[in-house]
Amino acid sequence: MAYELYYWDGLQGRGEFVRLALEESGADYVDVTREPGRGTDAMFALMKSESEPHIPFAPPFLRDNELIIPHVANILFYLGPKLGLAPEDEGLRHVANGLQLTITDFVAEVHDTHHPIDTSLYYEDQKPEAKARSAAFIRDRIPKFLGYFERVLRQNPSGPQHIVGNGLTYVDLSLFQVIEGLTYAFPKAMAKRKGEYPTLLALHDRVAKRPNIARYLASPRRLAFNEDGIFRHYPELDSAE
Amino acid sequence: MAYELYYWDGLQGRGEFVRLALEESGADYVDVTREPGRGTDAMFALMKSESEPHIPFAPPFLRDNELIIPHVANILFYLGPKLGLAPEDEGLRHVANGLQLTITDFVAEVHDTHHPIDTSLYYEDQKPEAKARSAAFIRDRIPKFLGYFERVLRQNPSGPQHIVGNGLTYVDLSLFQVIEGLTYAFPKAMAKRKGEYPTLLALHDRVAKRPNIARYLASPRRLAFNEDGIFRHYPELDSAE
Repeated sequence: MAYELYYWDGLQGRGEFVRLALEESGADYVDVTREPGRGTDAMFALMKSESEPHIPFAPPFLRDNELIIPHVANILFYLGPKLGLAPEDEGLRHVANGLQLTITDFVAEVHDTHHPIDTSLYYEDQKPEAKARSAAFIRDRIPKFLGYFERVLRQNPSGPQHIVGNGLTYVDLSLFQVIEGLTYAFPKAMAKRKGEYPTLLALHDRVAKRPNIARYLASPRRLAFNEDGIFRHYPELDSAE
Repeated sequence: MAYELYYWDGLQGRGEFVRLALEESGADYVDVTREPGRGTDAMFALMKSESEPHIPFAPPFLRDNELIIPHVANILFYLGPKLGLAPEDEGLRHVANGLQLTITDFVAEVHDTHHPIDTSLYYEDQKPEAKARSAAFIRDRIPKFLGYFERVLRQNPSGPQHIVGNGLTYVDLSLFQVIEGLTYAFPKAMAKRKGEYPTLLALHDRVAKRPNIARYLASPRRLAFNEDGIFRHYPELDSAE
């Protein structure tokens, strides 16, 4: 049976980190909420089920036959070895998972730049606080996270081509997405700082050129960034400091 | 060699979720920054190392011989089977990890109730925003998360004694800590709502009575909650709505 990915329709969001792994490996998968006749109702049916043994808290989640697996890092930890996108070594798999969880934290902070107070309100209802949080994010958090990934790449004993081990993993694909998203959301901040992370940017560029990824990015399956997703471009939140 | 846990000294924080698993199972471990002659410097030495192949982004992290494993959920996924605190079934291990990652998200939201704008500033520098974020947290997020865990317990096909499978796992221990922390930080809000989560509260009470946990909680190794940790009691942020 094909893997079933459940995520909000109409945006890249957190689901995109899973899609990139499925697309790179050419896996057979269904993006359930985009299927005619299924849609978001199919996702809610699982989340609200009173009989499912393992209900997820929130999308994205993956269904593999009877098993329902929630959370991006957990899905990728599960899929990685099956898709040939995880290190062979068991210990290195936990290193990969640790890196992915650092990306998870970073992505949550990106989300909070436009929703610092209340996720149930619109961005427009928390604009001054969003501006303050974005200023701190650009000043402290972008350099802290990107500087970290740059260091990890340079210190990889197998070489700076990949973030962990000597082959492509799902973490490399996720780092591509982080750079894409930040460049969309904070173009001025990124234009100013990009030069500080040459190894990370080179990884981003190599991932973009991989045949399956390039084909996916050019396909209608890759939605454009927009202001419903995690990475949003509100010009008033962006700055070169 | 004993497991080495690296985390900030002087607070429970995220490290506590790992300590509870190590203590329950009676594992041989060292809480490195509390060791005379090692302290926080030993932690920074690893984080800032220019030769370590796998540097962590932030504490807590675990050292098991050559392997350095960061992030609470990743540490527990790694330790769980070794400590007898994970399901036997491989699929259920990913279910446990998914639950632990939902706890991770919840804990990050707890942190942001007192630091909604800027983690580099003091709470006192973002008080009005903290009050607004805490109000939304108490109104929407506590019921959403605790209601979810209550449902998962009740729908567990093996019975509501444990959150996953038919035996104690590290996720049960973490849920104990979540209830402890929320009750400390938001006593009024919790007093009002506790009755809605009887299955979860019963789990909390059972964990507290486990011999190794009870012994640990009474020992000097269990630090008191305080206003340096994740769960902080600022009376002005608490309310019964």
